[in-house]
Amino acid sequence: MRYCPSCGATLERRTPEGDDRERHVCPSCGAVHYQNPKIVVGSVCSHGGQLLLCRRAIPPRAGFWTIPAGYLELGETAEEGARREAWEEARARIQLEGLLAVYSVRRIDQVQLLYRARLLDPDVSAGPESLEVRLVGWDGIPWDELAFPTVRWILERALAVKDQPAPLVTVGNPDQAQPDLAPGEGGL
Amino acid sequence: MRYCPSCGATLERRTPEGDDRERHVCPSCGAVHYQNPKIVVGSVCSHGGQLLLCRRAIPPRAGFWTIPAGYLELGETAEEGARREAWEEARARIQLEGLLAVYSVRRIDQVQLLYRARLLDPDVSAGPESLEVRLVGWDGIPWDELAFPTVRWILERALAVKDQPAPLVTVGNPDQAQPDLAPGEGGL
Repeated sequence: MRYCPSCGATLERRTPEGDDRERHVCPSCGAVHYQNPKIVVGSVCSHGGQLLLCRRAIPPRAGFWTIPAGYLELGETAEEGARREAWEEARARIQLEGLLAVYSVRRIDQVQLLYRARLLDPDVSAGPESLEVRLVGWDGIPWDELAFPTVRWILERALAVKDQPAPLVTVGNPDQAQPDLAPGEGGL
Repeated sequence: MRYCPSCGATLERRTPEGDDRERHVCPSCGAVHYQNPKIVVGSVCSHGGQLLLCRRAIPPRAGFWTIPAGYLELGETAEEGARREAWEEARARIQLEGLLAVYSVRRIDQVQLLYRARLLDPDVSAGPESLEVRLVGWDGIPWDELAFPTVRWILERALAVKDQPAPLVTVGNPDQAQPDLAPGEGGL
């Protein structure tokens, strides 16, 4: 970040008054441009004892296996984002069951919110970012061909808790209808 | 966002190839500037049956009560951010116990990760963004003077689960030491 997105002037790095760290500050219009970690949302989707995996069509790690996941967009909730990614990458319609894990990946400034979900329909197919999609048994996970460490972590965790009821943590806001959460799960 | 942060040229709004929504695209250098929701991290901190609340010194909602919470910074994990905010706003040293809730606040493009924590030391005091801090009993929460709906939601939730063990959800990465999570809680 070198130029002010608001006015086009050349930015300075300095600590604004009342702050305790350097920011991109515009000497012309005074705007402070904060940079913050991004949110990745995704889900481990199962159906009848099988898991949904996608083989990546795009970098990074094209050709390797992952779960449906991607950046949360403006204007959507984390749960909506997880459902959108399942559709975009695997044409999968899913019902979220609860949050499985929150991973902070400091090196790339990501926080990943990863859910457990069930497929509403086993008829899945590769979206534009996937080479292929597959339903595999728990013993058929290609551990040596996974795209990212977080994919391994979440599959190990999903395997470890696969017979447990959905996690206690609340996902979704109390003042909203939550059509994407299974009844009685994910809430109080 | 009107000017390219990379080269200073005037940005266009258009849908990049392979994307399905409009982005800020630079016609000069070709950069695509994504905008995404931000992460707020915070905690409901208790000590001997009392809760930590902070009265805000700064807008929005100066003078109203909140929990220690704020934007996650680059280079830190969600758990580190929650601990930093407790220190900055209330000079509180805390031990995280688990994740209480994930709220998506669509209108302001925030995802809030709110934890349960215990104070390691009841000696707290107002940081620069607080007018005062107070330890109150569960029956002493100033429900009519809370700063934001999410503060009410998380206090209601913390009250509802105050006698339950920490949530099952994993917070923190399996390949990291997790000094800010209580042993046996928050993870597998």
